Amino acid sequence: MTTQARAPKRWLAEVFVSLKPVVNDPQGLAVRDGLHMLGYKEVDAVRVGKYLTLTLTAADREAAEARVAAMCEQLLANPVIEQYRLQVSEADDAPGSQG
Amino acid sequence: MTTQARAPKRWLAEVFVSLKPVVNDPQGLAVRDGLHMLGYKEVDAVRVGKYLTLTLTAADREAAEARVAAMCEQLLANPVIEQYRLQVSEADDAPGSQG
Repeated sequence: MTTQARAPKRWLAEVFVSLKPVVNDPQGLAVRDGLHMLGYKEVDAVRVGKYLTLTLTAADREAAEARVAAMCEQLLANPVIEQYRLQVSEADDAPGSQG
Repeated sequence: MTTQARAPKRWLAEVFVSLKPVVNDPQGLAVRDGLHMLGYKEVDAVRVGKYLTLTLTAADREAAEARVAAMCEQLLANPVIEQYRLQVSEADDAPGSQG
């Protein structure tokens, strides 16, 4: 019924979700003000987003990327105000499988 | 009084803050359960962290990295339960200065 091309492998997906540039980021402003109060006057902008790491099973990298992109559209990011970027690597040779 | 080596430049720092592997992540579990309910059964672990982008002025890359690392230790991450990774690039040729 299926082509059964390759055995499924484990993948580590890193997802970076950030507010779109036109969206206000009060949390980022608060962090920037905190840094200024601590003496880090050289900072002129801070934006705060989310960094998600997922481990999942998929036949190949393309399949893993497509599934994670679908997850972003449906749950992980709010496409109205947020943008996302993702990166998929093999779970075993990923340097920082700290997730 | 100072050596005045180079004109200060603008840098884009990306900071990835994640919980240490030994620390429980209830938010990550909730996201994983949400993905399972949406049909993404192939996901077996999710960890949720922070993704910060900062723009700052510094003489060179090493100085920028050192300052941002100090900011992480002092404010951006909680070194007891979190780990961080950072990446500094020139603000102007950074592909995604989406911050």
